[in-house]
Amino acid sequence: MLGKDLLGLENLDKKDLQQILDSVKPFKSLFTRSVKKAPTLMGKTVVTLFYEPSTRTRTSFEIAAKRLSADVVNIAVNTSSVVKGESLIDTGKTLEAMKADYVVIRHSLSGTPELLARNLNASIINAGDGFHEHPTQGLLDLYTMYDKKKKIEGLKVLLVGDIRHSRVAKSNIWALTKMGASVAVAGPPTLIPKELKDIGVKVFYNLDEAIKNADVVNILRIQLERQQENLFPSVREYVSLYQLNEERLAKAKPGVIVMHPGPMNRGIEISSSVADSPNAVINEQVTNGIAVRMAVLYLLKPNKVKKHASSN
Amino acid sequence: MLGKDLLGLENLDKKDLQQILDSVKPFKSLFTRSVKKAPTLMGKTVVTLFYEPSTRTRTSFEIAAKRLSADVVNIAVNTSSVVKGESLIDTGKTLEAMKADYVVIRHSLSGTPELLARNLNASIINAGDGFHEHPTQGLLDLYTMYDKKKKIEGLKVLLVGDIRHSRVAKSNIWALTKMGASVAVAGPPTLIPKELKDIGVKVFYNLDEAIKNADVVNILRIQLERQQENLFPSVREYVSLYQLNEERLAKAKPGVIVMHPGPMNRGIEISSSVADSPNAVINEQVTNGIAVRMAVLYLLKPNKVKKHASSN
Amino acid sequence: MLGKDLLGLENLDKKDLQQILDSVKPFKSLFTRSVKKAPTLMGKTVVTLFYEPSTRTRTSFEIAAKRLSADVVNIAVNTSSVVKGESLIDTGKTLEAMKADYVVIRHSLSGTPELLARNLNASIINAGDGFHEHPTQGLLDLYTMYDKKKKIEGLKVLLVGDIRHSRVAKSNIWALTKMGASVAVAGPPTLIPKELKDIGVKVFYNLDEAIKNADVVNILRIQLERQQENLFPSVREYVSLYQLNEERLAKAKPGVIVMHPGPMNRGIEISSSVADSPNAVINEQVTNGIAVRMAVLYLLKPNKVKKHASSN
Repeated sequence: MLGKDLLGLENLDKKDLQQILDSVKPFKSLFTRSVKKAPTLMGKTVVTLFYEPSTRTRTSFEIAAKRLSADVVNIAVNTSSVVKGESLIDTGKTLEAMKADYVVIRHSLSGTPELLARNLNASIINAGDGFHEHPTQGLLDLYTMYDKKKKIEGLKVLLVGDIRHSRVAKSNIWALTKMGASVAVAGPPTLIPKELKDIGVKVFYNLDEAIKNADVVNILRIQLERQQENLFPSVREYVSLYQLNEERLAKAKPGVIVMHPGPMNRGIEISSSVADSPNAVINEQVTNGIAVRMAVLYLLKPNKVKKHASSN
Repeated sequence: MLGKDLLGLENLDKKDLQQILDSVKPFKSLFTRSVKKAPTLMGKTVVTLFYEPSTRTRTSFEIAAKRLSADVVNIAVNTSSVVKGESLIDTGKTLEAMKADYVVIRHSLSGTPELLARNLNASIINAGDGFHEHPTQGLLDLYTMYDKKKKIEGLKVLLVGDIRHSRVAKSNIWALTKMGASVAVAGPPTLIPKELKDIGVKVFYNLDEAIKNADVVNILRIQLERQQENLFPSVREYVSLYQLNEERLAKAKPGVIVMHPGPMNRGIEISSSVADSPNAVINEQVTNGIAVRMAVLYLLKPNKVKKHASSN
Repeated sequence: MLGKDLLGLENLDKKDLQQILDSVKPFKSLFTRSVKKAPTLMGKTVVTLFYEPSTRTRTSFEIAAKRLSADVVNIAVNTSSVVKGESLIDTGKTLEAMKADYVVIRHSLSGTPELLARNLNASIINAGDGFHEHPTQGLLDLYTMYDKKKKIEGLKVLLVGDIRHSRVAKSNIWALTKMGASVAVAGPPTLIPKELKDIGVKVFYNLDEAIKNADVVNILRIQLERQQENLFPSVREYVSLYQLNEERLAKAKPGVIVMHPGPMNRGIEISSSVADSPNAVINEQVTNGIAVRMAVLYLLKPNKVKKHASSN
C-alpha cells in the first residue's frame, strides 16, 4: 500500500505498482463523461512547487487535482521571491503551515523531494528530481504498456537514448523490472551506465539489433544542451544511429508500440512519420498521465505521520 | 449556428452574429447577483494558451470560464518549456489528450488558431492571431454598440487609428458590415489598406471630417513600437491629427459613443477628458467582454467532429 | 466595524481590531477538518494584483480565498501587459468592470491601495505598499500574539531590525499600540525613525538590553540590498549587534515568543537554532495568516459605496 509520499519507484514493490495500475481505470473513465470531475479531494489543497520550468507535467498535475475537486496553487520558483534566501525546508514548512495536503515538487537536485518528505506531514509527490526519478512518468508509461499489452510480466521493453541523465528512464526501469518485464536499453556507450547490467537490464549500443525483439519502444527526449559535455555525439551522428525512423521500426515486431514522454524533438530522436504512425501511443500517454496522477493523489495518505503519532 | 470553433468573424453570417448578441444578456445579468456563477461548464476544462503576453484578454476569458464553473488552466508560453522544440500541433495534441474541452489561443502568427482547429476536437477560440482577427473583441464591441444603440443595422461606426495592423479593426469590420452597419475608418494613409473600399468601408484621412456622421467612434490602441517601421508618423503629429479630444468629439453627434479596446494610451490616441466623458463606454466594454465570452463558451460545440463521426 | 477596504491599521480603532481577532477562530478551525472549505464567498471574484513579486503573501491570500470558495485570478504585473502604458486607475477600473469583488494589491509605491479604494467599489486589500503598511501581516502578528499570550493589553512587544523601511513594523506598531500593548523597537540608529518616541514607542539601540523585558520578539527580515544606501551596517556588524541568537534569547523571559514574517535569512537576523527553538511561532504565523485573511475577506463589505448610494 502506498504511504504518505511518492518519491520514486525504486522503493515500491510489485503489489504497490499493481495497486496503482488497478486504480487508474475509474479515473480515466471519468474523461468520457460530460462532467469530468469527482469530489474526491474537495476541500484539499494541492501545491505545485516547480524549481524547473515545466508546462507539461505541471499542467497534468493541475488538471488531475482539479478533476478531483482540489484547490490548486501553482508556485513557479524562478519567477518568485521564494528563491530569495529561503531554504527549501523553510519553504516546505511554510507550505505545511498553510495546511497544504499535497506538495508536487520538481527540482534540479536529486533527493529534494525526499528532504521535504522527511520534514513535512503533507504528501510529497516527486515530479522529477535531477537525474534521479520521475515516478509519475514511470507509472504512466507502465500503465500505458499495461493498457495496450494487457500485461507487464514477460513484456520486452526497450528504452532508447540518454539513459544516464534520464530520470524517466530510471523510473521506467524500476517499475518494469519489479513487474517482471524484460528491459533493454539502447544508446551511445557514453550515455549508458554500466551498472544497469547488474540489475538485469540488457544493454545495446546498436538500435537496429536491439529493436528486433521489442514489444514496446520508449524513446527518450534528447537534451540538446548535453552536447557541450562531450558525452554526446553530434546531432547528425545521433540521428543516423539512434533515431527511431520508419526503416528501423519495420525491423520490430508488427504490434510494437512506440512511446515518448514528450515534448518530442521531431526529426531528432524520432522521425515525424513514426511519431504519427499507428504504432505510436504518445497522446494516450498524456491522457493516461492525468488518470495515473489522479490515482496517485487518491491513494497517497497525507498526514500519515501525524495520524500514526496519535495512534489513529 | 456556431460550430466547434470561433476563429474569426469573417466566416460567420448575420444569423450567427445575431444569435450571439441574443445570448449575452442572461450571462450579463448574472453579474448583478450575489452569486455570479452558473453551473453551465461544470467539469469542463478550459486551457488558455498565450504565446503573446496579455493580462486583459486572458483575465477576461479566465473569469468568464470560472463563472461558468469550468476548471481553467493557464499556459503562458514565454515562461514555459512548451516553447522548447515542440511544434504547435504537438502542443495542441497534448492539450487534446489532456481532454481539454476549450483551448483559448493567442499567437503572433495569423492562422495559428485555424491550424489547431483543424487538428483538434476541442473547441478553439481565437484570442488574437497576428494581424488577422480578434473575434471576441469584435463581438464585445458589437454587443456594446447593440446594447447602447439598440440596433446595428444602419449604425454609422467610425474606427480610428492603425487599421492595417489591427486585428481588432478587422473583426469589427467583418461583424459590422455583415450586420448592416455603415463602417468608416480614419487614420494615416500608410496605415489604411486600400482594399477596404472594395468591401464597402468608407476611408477618411481627416478625422475632423470623418467624425461628423458617426454614431460610434471606436478608437484603436496605438502600438508605439510601429514607429520604427516608417509607417507611422511622429507621436506629436499623430496626436495633432488623430487624437480623439474634446474639440473633435464636439463635432460629432450629441449621443455619439466612444469605445476603446484598452489598455488606453491616454494623451495619445485619446485624451483623458474624452476617456472619462459620459460618451465613453470603455468600462462597459470590459463588462460586456466577460458576458460575451461566456456566451461564446456556451454556444460553441466541443468535440463536434467526433460526434459527427460516431453519428451521434 | 470594517468598511469596504483594508488599507492600513492606522485608521482602525480598538473595536475594529478586536472584531477581527474574534472572527479568526472559526476559520482556523476549518483547517483541522477533512474538508477545509466554507461556501462564504461562492460566486465572488478575488483578484490578486501584484506589482512586486511575492510568493508567500500571494499564496496565502489565494488559499484563503479558495477556502472561502471564491474564484481567484492572479495578475503578476511584471510579467504582463498591464504594465504597458496603462495607468493604475485604468487597471483598477478594468478590474471593477470585470466585477471583481475584492482586489488584493501589492505595490512599491505607498498610497497605491488608497488610490484604488477611492476609485473602485470593489473591496481593496493592501498586501503591502512601499514603506507604508502591510495590514494583514500586522493582523496575523497581532492574532498570533493574542492566541499565544491570551491578551494584547499590557503585552511587552519588541520589534527588531530595519524599522524605517518596514511596512510590517509600521502595521505592527499601529495595531499593538491601539490595543494597549507596550511596544519597543531595537536596531541601528540610522534605521529607526526618531518620531516613534512621539507615539509612545520605546527606542533601543542595544538589543541585549531591549530584550530583557519582552514577552514577544518580532524579528524583521533584513533587506540586504539596503546596504548600498549607506544606512545599513555591514552584515558582520549587524549579526554581531542585532542577530537574535541563543545567547541573546537566554536574556529574555522564559516564555518569550519569537516571531518573523518570513522568509527568514537564517544566520543573519535570526540564528537557525532560535528559528527552530520551541520559542519560535513562525510557522503558526503562516497558518494564522490564512485564517486572518479569511476573516478579513469575510468582514469587508465590497460595493459598500454603491449600496450607500442606493440607500440599501
